[in-house]
Amino acid sequence: MPGFRLVLEYDGSGFHGWQVQPGGQRTVQGVLEAALRRVTGGPVRALGAGRTDAGVHAEGQVAGAWVETELAPEQLARALNGVLPRDLAVVACERAPEGFHPRYAACAKLYRYRIWNGACRSPLREARVHWVRTPLDVSAMREAAAALVGTHDFASFQAAGSDVATTVRRLARLDVTGPPGGEIAVEVEGDGFLRHMVRILVGTLLDVGLGRRDAASMPALLAGRDRTRAGRTAPARGLTLVRVEYDSAGTSRAWKGSGVDGRVPVRYQFAPANPRPEDASR
Amino acid sequence: MPGFRLVLEYDGSGFHGWQVQPGGQRTVQGVLEAALRRVTGGPVRALGAGRTDAGVHAEGQVAGAWVETELAPEQLARALNGVLPRDLAVVACERAPEGFHPRYAACAKLYRYRIWNGACRSPLREARVHWVRTPLDVSAMREAAAALVGTHDFASFQAAGSDVATTVRRLARLDVTGPPGGEIAVEVEGDGFLRHMVRILVGTLLDVGLGRRDAASMPALLAGRDRTRAGRTAPARGLTLVRVEYDSAGTSRAWKGSGVDGRVPVRYQFAPANPRPEDASR
Repeated sequence: MPGFRLVLEYDGSGFHGWQVQPGGQRTVQGVLEAALRRVTGGPVRALGAGRTDAGVHAEGQVAGAWVETELAPEQLARALNGVLPRDLAVVACERAPEGFHPRYAACAKLYRYRIWNGACRSPLREARVHWVRTPLDVSAMREAAAALVGTHDFASFQAAGSDVATTVRRLARLDVTGPPGGEIAVEVEGDGFLRHMVRILVGTLLDVGLGRRDAASMPALLAGRDRTRAGRTAPARGLTLVRVEYDSAGTSRAWKGSGVDGRVPVRYQFAPANPRPEDASR
Repeated sequence: MPGFRLVLEYDGSGFHGWQVQPGGQRTVQGVLEAALRRVTGGPVRALGAGRTDAGVHAEGQVAGAWVETELAPEQLARALNGVLPRDLAVVACERAPEGFHPRYAACAKLYRYRIWNGACRSPLREARVHWVRTPLDVSAMREAAAALVGTHDFASFQAAGSDVATTVRRLARLDVTGPPGGEIAVEVEGDGFLRHMVRILVGTLLDVGLGRRDAASMPALLAGRDRTRAGRTAPARGLTLVRVEYDSAGTSRAWKGSGVDGRVPVRYQFAPANPRPEDASR
């Protein structure tokens, strides 16, 4: 079946995450596959680059979709947007390279976590932020974040009960920006993430920002390889998958444990049909 | 009854505007008065600075509230936020000056209108923007906007059937920012606005941005004093009342027709309990 590479934007509030689930709950994959079936009338298969949790949003999730269709990529995108609900849209579509796998071929992902640090809850931000009322020590959070950048064993930062071949990952950056008392963003870019890793990183940085944990304690926390010593998993609604990057071929397995050094990803080889202002600077 | 000055933030999507309506629909004023009654147990009266339409949002609507209570302003705000729904919050509260009227005493208001100019609809922006797919000529929109700044008769820019003493208003600024194809904001500040004026201004600027109307035609449009010659009323969901300003006394009637020149408003004499990052620069 011909394969397509789709870039998806969604408001995660109304989805039980990406993955189709046995109970038939509403998921992004399920809604996308239903739209593909409706548009093409045939069998479909859709895979995502990141299996976002329930409530997590996406500006640039990437999916592979395999369908029997004569439609050109742009026509397929338009047809899908005609039947998709308001909280999910295809913002770009192109033919996938032979052998493309959206998750295995991804060489980098960028997530953003938004924290609202105002004294009062914010109705206009509510669905997209985690509200922390106590003013945060953003400098201390930055200091802790700097110690986590690079290639480390992140076993302390994965959901309990996970079973993966290696817990070594490389964080290219982990930036904390914004004023205490205002809106604070944590942006994290890496070659791959363990289950709940971004939300546990944020929960741990929040402990530091609240003075409950020392900014200098990160190396020991990594070395301990113990989930129970890291911070709580921050709520899903603050998290957005901003973009997924592929190398020029878009097919190679992007990371093998820590073996990523020296690879320079070619960012987004396919031009999004829906360029965003912030893309201009990349 | 003691009076309070409240700053309100709300997501307008779930409200039939500010004003209590005969049909008993859900309005901001109605929900606020119900919360005041619940907290104080007595008679209440609430008035707003701007009677926002159904679907219009607010970051800084100002209300006057008169209630019998022993609560200090900060206690009242906390009690109200404890019973208000998720889409409405009191972000600041202080005692109102004697004779305060939130609408008549306001000397300036700032509105922001958000336009999403991407090729595809944006699920994450959906409830807060007006989507215009065709790339806009932002330079032409700016040129037209510049011709509308100042003191003019805005009769062409008010909802048909309105009946006010004078249609002369003063726009302190009307800024169009953002890249074509991305998110474009129209910010407008003035001493007072006619019914639907901001949305008709935006609808007219959109005509210019789409090449349907000449940027140089604004003086003739103003001179014509004819609603049917201006653009359509842009949809409510793109509009946010950002803030309302009062002079130091907070009680004087702020504008009388065009007689506003020479008055320098003292911005927000009362410190919001919930300072925002963008406030720091003011």
